This record gives sequence, C-alpha cells and structure tokens, in this order.
Amino acid sequence: MTERVINFNAGPAALPLPALQRARDEFLDYRGSGMSIMEHSHRGKDYEAVHEEAIALLRGLLDVPEDFHVLFLQGGASQAFATVPMNFLLPGGTADYVITGGWSEKALDEAKLLGSPRVAANTYAGGRSTRVPAQSELSLDPTASYLHFTTNNTLEGTQFHAFPDGHGVPLVGDMSSDFLWRPMDVRPFGLIYAGAQKNLGPSGVIIFLIRKDFLATARKDIPKIFRFGVHADNNSLYNTPPTFAVYMVRNVLAWMRDVGGLAALEAANRQKAGILYGALDTASEFYRCPVEPGSRSVMNVVFRLPTEALEDRFVSEAKKAGMVGLKGHRSVGGIRVSMYNAIPPAAVQTLVDFMTDFAKRSG
Amino acid sequence: MTERVINFNAGPAALPLPALQRARDEFLDYRGSGMSIMEHSHRGKDYEAVHEEAIALLRGLLDVPEDFHVLFLQGGASQAFATVPMNFLLPGGTADYVITGGWSEKALDEAKLLGSPRVAANTYAGGRSTRVPAQSELSLDPTASYLHFTTNNTLEGTQFHAFPDGHGVPLVGDMSSDFLWRPMDVRPFGLIYAGAQKNLGPSGVIIFLIRKDFLATARKDIPKIFRFGVHADNNSLYNTPPTFAVYMVRNVLAWMRDVGGLAALEAANRQKAGILYGALDTASEFYRCPVEPGSRSVMNVVFRLPTEALEDRFVSEAKKAGMVGLKGHRSVGGIRVSMYNAIPPAAVQTLVDFMTDFAKRSG
Repeated sequence: MTERVINFNAGPAALPLPALQRARDEFLDYRGSGMSIMEHSHRGKDYEAVHEEAIALLRGLLDVPEDFHVLFLQGGASQAFATVPMNFLLPGGTADYVITGGWSEKALDEAKLLGSPRVAANTYAGGRSTRVPAQSELSLDPTASYLHFTTNNTLEGTQFHAFPDGHGVPLVGDMSSDFLWRPMDVRPFGLIYAGAQKNLGPSGVIIFLIRKDFLATARKDIPKIFRFGVHADNNSLYNTPPTFAVYMVRNVLAWMRDVGGLAALEAANRQKAGILYGALDTASEFYRCPVEPGSRSVMNVVFRLPTEALEDRFVSEAKKAGMVGLKGHRSVGGIRVSMYNAIPPAAVQTLVDFMTDFAKRSG
Repeated sequence: MTERVINFNAGPAALPLPALQRARDEFLDYRGSGMSIMEHSHRGKDYEAVHEEAIALLRGLLDVPEDFHVLFLQGGASQAFATVPMNFLLPGGTADYVITGGWSEKALDEAKLLGSPRVAANTYAGGRSTRVPAQSELSLDPTASYLHFTTNNTLEGTQFHAFPDGHGVPLVGDMSSDFLWRPMDVRPFGLIYAGAQKNLGPSGVIIFLIRKDFLATARKDIPKIFRFGVHADNNSLYNTPPTFAVYMVRNVLAWMRDVGGLAALEAANRQKAGILYGALDTASEFYRCPVEPGSRSVMNVVFRLPTEALEDRFVSEAKKAGMVGLKGHRSVGGIRVSMYNAIPPAAVQTLVDFMTDFAKRSG
C-alpha cells in the first residue's frame, strides 16, 4: 500500500486515519450483522444506534444545551443558504447579513430571491477581503429575524475570533469550515450550520444546531422537506438520512472525543497556526499573507509568493514531497493551506520545513 | 468474518458485493493517491474521473440520448417532491399527479404547497392500493406542465409495467425503487428521478435525467441551489456533490455493466419475480398477495400470512436462517420482500424454500 500523503485540501478534506480505518475494517460486515452499515435500514436498530451516538457525541463535545435541536440533514451549506431564509426570513420581515467573502455573498444572494435581507457590514468590496469587521462597524437592524455571518472564510483565509453581538437578534452562523475547532458557547446562536466535509466527515451531510425558541418563529407554509421543524420533530429521520455519511461523522466525532475533545483540538489547532503564521512572518520578504493579523484564520491560511510561476513550482514540488491540496481557490489564486482538525501539528511542521527550504532555494 | 446475510431491505438496501469490495480495498488509498476517495477535492482530477465515469456508465447502460442531462445531486426523492414543482409547476399553471400509494401522495402534498396540481387518477383511496390505474382511467389535462407518477410503489408492492401516455404532456417519473431494473425508452419523459438507495448505491445521492426541452420551461426565479438548470450548466458540480455516494454509485453501475447490463438484469429480475410470485400462487391458502396480477411489482413483493403472530414468527425464523429485512413497512404491515438488482435469483430460491417449509410446519 502507498503511504498516505499529507492532505491540505480545503474540503472535502483529510479525515482522521482511525475514523477511516474503523470504517474500512467493518465495511463489508458491520458489527457481525452480515452487511455494510450502508446496507442497513435507516429504521433498523443498528443504524439508529449510530444516529443517536452521533448526536450524543456532538452534544457532549460542544456541550450543547437541551434547548437546542441537533439535526443531521442531507445537503451542504449551499442548500442552507436557501433553506435558512425560507424558514426564517418572514414575509415583510428582514434579516441582516455580514459579508466577508464569497460564501457569505452567496448566502445573501439566495436570501435576496426569497425576501429582503439587509447588509449589516461588508468587508468584501470588490471581491477581495483581508479582514472581518469589528463590532463597531456593524449596522444592525433590531427588527431583523436573524444576523447571518460566515464564521470562517475558506477562500479569503479570514475568521471571526470573537462573534458579532446581535443585541438580542439571534445569530445564524455558517460554520462549515470551522465547526468544532474549539469549545464555544452556542447560546447566542439561533442556528448554526456546518457542512461536514471540512472538520467532520465526507460531503453529503450537514449539521444544524437550532435553538428551540428560534425554531418556533419559522414559517410553516413551505414544503415539508425544507421545514426544520419537521426534521426536529422526526429526529432527522423524516426522510432517509445519508446513513453512511452520518456513520462517518460518528466515527470522526468519536475520534475527537478519544483525542481529548475540543480543548485538546483547540490547543493543536493554535499550535499549527502558530507554526505556519510564524514561518510566514519570519520569511515575509518571500511569503506574503494578505490577511490582517486580527482576522487570520486558524483553519485556512492563504499566502502569495513573489510570482505565479513560483507558486506553481511550490505546489508541484510540495506534491513531490508528499503534500497535496495547496493550490489556492481558482477565484483567488496563490497558496492555501487548509489544516482542519485531522491535520496534526507535525504535518504543518513538515510543510514549514519545506517552505523554508523552498524560499532559500528560490528567494 | 461473519458470513454476509441475505438482505431483503427496502432501502437502504443490499449492494453488489464486488462494488463494496472494490470500495473496501481502496478505502484508505484511492488508486495510489495516498488518500481515501472521500478525502479528494471534488474539483480534483481523481474525483472528476469518477464523476464522469458514473455519468458515462449510466448513459451507456440506459442508452440515454444526448438531449437529456444526467445529474447526480444531494438529497433523495422526498426533496424532489418539492424541487420538481418548484421548477416546473409554473405560476397559474397546473400539473397532473397519478396517486398510487404513499409516496405519490407525499409528492402531491408537496406540490400543493407550491401551486395547484390536479389528481389525474387515484388507486390509493383509503390509504390502500392493490393496483396501478389503466390508461383509460387517467383524466388528463392537456395544459398540464407535466404528468407525475411513481413507477414502483415500495409500500404497496405495485408497479407500472407500461407507463402512462401523457398525450404530449411530459412524463415525470419517480423511479427511486425501480430505476435500471430493465432497459427502457426514456424519451417520453421530461424528467426521471431516482434516489440511489435501492438499486444504485447508498442513501444521500439522487439521479435526475432531464430532457433539455423540458428543462427550458423551468422557472428561473427560485433559489439557485434548487434550479435544475444551474446544476445542468455545472455538470452537477455547482456545489460540493456527495462524492463518496457518487463513487459508490459508480461502483454499482460498473458492476451492472460487468454482469451484462440491463438486459441481463431484467432477465434475473423476472426470474426472481417468477420464483417468488409462483410460490405465493402455489401456496395461496397460506400466503396471500393482495396485489392484482397486472400490477405486481418485480422489485417489492408484499404478502400476508394468516395471522400477525405467524408473520412475526416468519420474520424471526427467517432471520435465524440468514434472511433479513422481511418485515413490511410499519404503515401497511405484513411481509415485504425487496429484491433489487443486487439480490441474485439463488437468494430468492433460498427464501422460497424457507417459505415452503414454514407453510408446511405452520399451515
């Protein structure tokens, strides 16, 4: 078997090896049942135990209070961009959106097709962004149904390190790319959503945390399949869930617990960010990180080299050295290092050693 | 390792062992790439090759003409119940629905929330159905945007063996439970949809075939994520697809090709139906199939025993004999045998031998 590479993909992304091995080992015969977990009925006791364990692990890791529903649904953030306003942007009402990058803009664009959202702040003018806004820059509407923002911007390499204060307006956070990177207090949020394919598992499943009093404000005249209330009433089993994807998320959540939970992951994530941003700052004449220090993402680090030709060579030589997924998103170029929970600090150190050598040879 | 059981689950359901083994063998290292296929970027060449191969295999197996799009999207039939009318039930327009069971009724209920669908026929009065309607029973509106029907009713064990004629109105078929059971002419259809978790793969992905002239009639003022035109323009890569689910469908489609394609599968499926319905008819004093002969499903066979206590014992003894998934849906009771493509005739013969013995012992 080939050795596994160091995978800095932005998503779908690297998953913890123990979670993958566990799935591989029981792939044809789940716990002596004589079939794969993906061949089990979603109404049977084997899958139901997986489903319940995934929910319980998530509640335990993040300390989710009882007044929040935890849902595992089909789709990803792009669908949530539509289903959130379908449920919560009421006729004649409004909602506030903080625009910090390409994904928050897409969320706003879908909301515009469904009602009249407002822009509460915009640090993405001209399609570039190097920071998230400060609280003082937010223009908030106290009558808004919710305040939507993207907690981490994968394209731009920016992240909210303190969440906006909605002054009573429920927060709605797209945490697809930084959910569960550290402990946090979910209570100011009316709703949190996170596509799994960064920190949590394969693509094809999305996690929603929804505060019960916020859910009570949702519309009930939209198609049933899009009503979060229907999914909450049915414990995410109203329709057939993406059973294998939920199973993989369960394996990843179990791994998170086994390595010490979110406090341990936060320490590792901060260590990785320290190693990589430290190297960028040390060699700032060669590697240029455009992101303002206070907004730098712990998950996705973006930087440029002196020329695009050097960037191409960097990506290609890194690949030969066993590191993949470093090419920046096609819309922004440059280099992007995505280092979600499954990436160990040693992998980032390997990258930094390569970077130091590359700069020496090419600078 | 435990022996694999005979799995008559209705969905998620049994998958072909070679398709599962292929996934298991390369689970940690996809073709020497050093990572799982589920850790690959959906924009990378490895996943893109899988994506393209899945589409090409489907086109080849079903002989799909060039004027049809083939899409692999997130979700399942329950979401299509809403997205089909969102796209094609135009403001002020109508659409015809044929009601033959629980699933077609759910499709109608979602459409009612979005416009004014008509019922073209109903053989599901009172929540029971033993047949699908004949063409002469359909009351068709020539101005309807489409004529929707469920080609196979998993709960009721009925199936259309000849499709309705829309007299120029495009057909829309929910083929979630009998897609690819045999060769067919897709051209009378404006749209076909099929959740994967019966004949095609794991839950979490749905296949759409959409005729281009029908797609041209779709609304363009709905959220982008729900516009089939957006997905067609982006070859199902507008958002992150459920990459591992698509990969598994690719493996299943490759298996279908390897065993001789849809003609060979049709022969096997007809053989299985012959064995099982033959046994039911032979022992009709003990096993009672409520479905009219002309509407009997080749995929899902439902029958009753003299008492519910005997049904429970049947399910429990079958399980001890290595056969699972035989309990009828909670809404209808009785026994249900789902025998999708992955179930070989020998498995049905094993069941029938058990049934003969059970009837002898219990009759």
